[in-house]
Amino acid sequence: MANYEQIIKLSLERGFYFPSSEIYSDAPAGFWEYGPNGVNIKNKFIDLWRKELVRKATMVEIDGAQIMSENVFIASGHIKNFSDPIIKCSGCKSTFRADRFISEKTGQEVPERINENEINVLIKKNNLKCPKCDSDFEESGRFNMMFKLGIGPNNDEAYLRPETCQSIFVDFSRLFKVMRGKLPFGVAQIGKSFRNEIAPRQSLLRLREFYQAEIEVFFNKETVNQIAGFEEIKDVILKIFYDDTNKELTVQEAINQEIIPNKLVAYYLVLLKQFYEKTGIDMEKTRFRKLSNEEKAFYATIAFDFEVETSVGWLELVACNDRSDYDLSEHSKTSKQNLEVIDPHTQTKILPQVFELSMGIDRSIYAILEHSFFDDIENERTVLRLKPYLAPITVGILPLVKKDGLGEMATKIFSDIKRDFNVFYDDAGSIGRRYRRLEEVGTPFAITIDHKTLEDQTVTIRYRDDMSQKRIDVSKIKEIINSLLNN
Amino acid sequence: MANYEQIIKLSLERGFYFPSSEIYSDAPAGFWEYGPNGVNIKNKFIDLWRKELVRKATMVEIDGAQIMSENVFIASGHIKNFSDPIIKCSGCKSTFRADRFISEKTGQEVPERINENEINVLIKKNNLKCPKCDSDFEESGRFNMMFKLGIGPNNDEAYLRPETCQSIFVDFSRLFKVMRGKLPFGVAQIGKSFRNEIAPRQSLLRLREFYQAEIEVFFNKETVNQIAGFEEIKDVILKIFYDDTNKELTVQEAINQEIIPNKLVAYYLVLLKQFYEKTGIDMEKTRFRKLSNEEKAFYATIAFDFEVETSVGWLELVACNDRSDYDLSEHSKTSKQNLEVIDPHTQTKILPQVFELSMGIDRSIYAILEHSFFDDIENERTVLRLKPYLAPITVGILPLVKKDGLGEMATKIFSDIKRDFNVFYDDAGSIGRRYRRLEEVGTPFAITIDHKTLEDQTVTIRYRDDMSQKRIDVSKIKEIINSLLNN
Repeated sequence: MANYEQIIKLSLERGFYFPSSEIYSDAPAGFWEYGPNGVNIKNKFIDLWRKELVRKATMVEIDGAQIMSENVFIASGHIKNFSDPIIKCSGCKSTFRADRFISEKTGQEVPERINENEINVLIKKNNLKCPKCDSDFEESGRFNMMFKLGIGPNNDEAYLRPETCQSIFVDFSRLFKVMRGKLPFGVAQIGKSFRNEIAPRQSLLRLREFYQAEIEVFFNKETVNQIAGFEEIKDVILKIFYDDTNKELTVQEAINQEIIPNKLVAYYLVLLKQFYEKTGIDMEKTRFRKLSNEEKAFYATIAFDFEVETSVGWLELVACNDRSDYDLSEHSKTSKQNLEVIDPHTQTKILPQVFELSMGIDRSIYAILEHSFFDDIENERTVLRLKPYLAPITVGILPLVKKDGLGEMATKIFSDIKRDFNVFYDDAGSIGRRYRRLEEVGTPFAITIDHKTLEDQTVTIRYRDDMSQKRIDVSKIKEIINSLLNN
Repeated sequence: MANYEQIIKLSLERGFYFPSSEIYSDAPAGFWEYGPNGVNIKNKFIDLWRKELVRKATMVEIDGAQIMSENVFIASGHIKNFSDPIIKCSGCKSTFRADRFISEKTGQEVPERINENEINVLIKKNNLKCPKCDSDFEESGRFNMMFKLGIGPNNDEAYLRPETCQSIFVDFSRLFKVMRGKLPFGVAQIGKSFRNEIAPRQSLLRLREFYQAEIEVFFNKETVNQIAGFEEIKDVILKIFYDDTNKELTVQEAINQEIIPNKLVAYYLVLLKQFYEKTGIDMEKTRFRKLSNEEKAFYATIAFDFEVETSVGWLELVACNDRSDYDLSEHSKTSKQNLEVIDPHTQTKILPQVFELSMGIDRSIYAILEHSFFDDIENERTVLRLKPYLAPITVGILPLVKKDGLGEMATKIFSDIKRDFNVFYDDAGSIGRRYRRLEEVGTPFAITIDHKTLEDQTVTIRYRDDMSQKRIDVSKIKEIINSLLNN
């Protein structure tokens, strides 16, 4: 398995991702760009998400504005609560996130929800000073992580959304009506969210601008155990970390032991597990962590984090929360709109509850890269063993030499398939080096055009993982690649 | 052809798009959401763009941060120049965009680039007063359309990008190096851009937050007439509006008459035309408008707008600009980085020029909807005659009746194909009404499950446009839909 530095090096050198505005010295931290290879893997990850989560579970998808009105975030509680504790130096005015600072300096665990008084006490007790100028700290405060904006000539207050789900809640009424919704009603959204982190770090792992893929399932709490398709998943085994221990048990057992509260929650946890199996993440290194009451967000009645183990520790990839009717209820109060709907099954008018799967895309991509990285010492190569349908480049086209008409033949093959797949043409350097370059970014198939190609219209196709080669007809290339991608 | 009101009605009622935060009275204007049908058509439009522009012309794609540092926009000129003229009422402080206000009130044409003095003179001459409170206006001013943000606890200045291309320029050096670039080197990006418009209007047509798909082609001006593939496109006919007249002429003629300056520009204009042909836009209602020196942006040496005629007039869908080396040169000066590269063909070190294709996605979607809208009076139906590969729903699955096991059979077929296509299951109402609902959102194929299905495992497939029906085997559905989508 790779370490963090190896992934960063690969990302910078091979165009997966790199810092934004990097030619400028005033470039703010916490903003990264996906380069050509990164964009492709991200887009294919999103395609897989649509196929294996949104369409598989018959949800609808929306794409809402990132700038939303102040009232939206008054209702959601973000304006009041979405803040981190900070301490500011009385001398040089350097600012630090209080909980992390104290924990780093003292080695003791500091809860994220620590209040200002407790911080001031800890600072005093441990005699902590500014690490830059050794001055004392001012009284601790809080820093709201929302980005504020002024709209129009009157500078009306608005905010960049800190999570994508708020559009789904405020759009719920219209969506349920125009899509002739039935409960459970799943609404998904992929898009950027923004958090003004005090200390962004570790490239894709803590960004100020990041991609989320959120799913909000609206449901009737009276029918959480009437889930079509439950029979098919009841024997699926889940790894749940709970009360400081790992438990492996079937969905049915988890429900019987009241670790999972109902069939609806079980259904979506299984859906998520089956999705990640298809991303190539090593499932042995994953778990659902059931959050204790102290760890849960204040609106959550039940919470599981889907976590993956990496070289930088366990990473939360998806937060799965039963948000009760908190969101619709608060938006209903603040907007003074009745957001209740008729459940067609029970014929009762209700304000639906929400079960949420909130996925971090950038972190998921990072975890896929790290788990796919393979230092193949025996064969003196580095290989990203990505699933073929997630690989940034699907096919390499390599003329053995440029001369003798092989270059022209290779160019023709390249032109014939480049609209259909991500194809990379490479005629520079030895064929061995060209294979290495393709393997390093995870290209599953390489097509080599040699002198025999001109005689009998065949090429070799080489497979990344076992390096085996096979001769195939030029006329069959498209069909063969398609079938390899679908298996 | 539809009018604007018909498209808005369809969009609101059938989930194509609708205003953001609409349950709130403080929702700012100029922000819209794509609903489920809108997201699908937008995503498929983007897929087509990737296939027929990015991959066809062998470009790379990136996805950069939307928040960028102040220096980026000092270099680009946006902080200085990206503003609209405004007038403010001295009484009620209502603000108006000056050029539009004067033009509406006086009926005379007012240039967008009018200066403050000229505005003050026109206001006085025409004795214009505030339409809300009848007070006089203050001296006219300018309003910068950038959204400003503060980053981190020190509130460092940054901005939401007003166009996606700036990331491409600042990333150029790294991209050219890690992708082993050759000139011409095309870099594409799709993403949100933000403009604080004084008066947003007409839903998707003038938004404050909108989707752009921009392509920046970096080239060596010494080799603009050495374009591989030019021979294949030289006889393509383009419609160019120039000097107040429409000209239809071949690419070669346009070059000979110096209407198009070189083969490189010609190649990309043809690429764009061929792309839009595949979107289903009525090409009879399109033109390339060659901009006069007065109309061009200050950085452009040559500019063509790809325009489409709609019920609200001619809309600019794509701005095609030769930006010279303006961008790289300014970023080079401001960042003090040398952004020159070696052109592998000429083996000279140069600062590349840029030809840009800047596409508005939301407007393109609007134009596609309007041009596809068909009021089929004869058959008493409304049909969106979308290209099958752009339709939000590809297949409808309709059990003739729910009982007799037809519902179960239909559900099984639905489950078998829903991961592969956008499929909608509908068992509510008469079969005729269900066909109508599908046609209205452009669904090209409907599969009906009837009593014969249970006997011989066949279903009918019905085609939207001619309403013809055919019996096919259940086992062949996936294959047939796939082949219909690819033709």
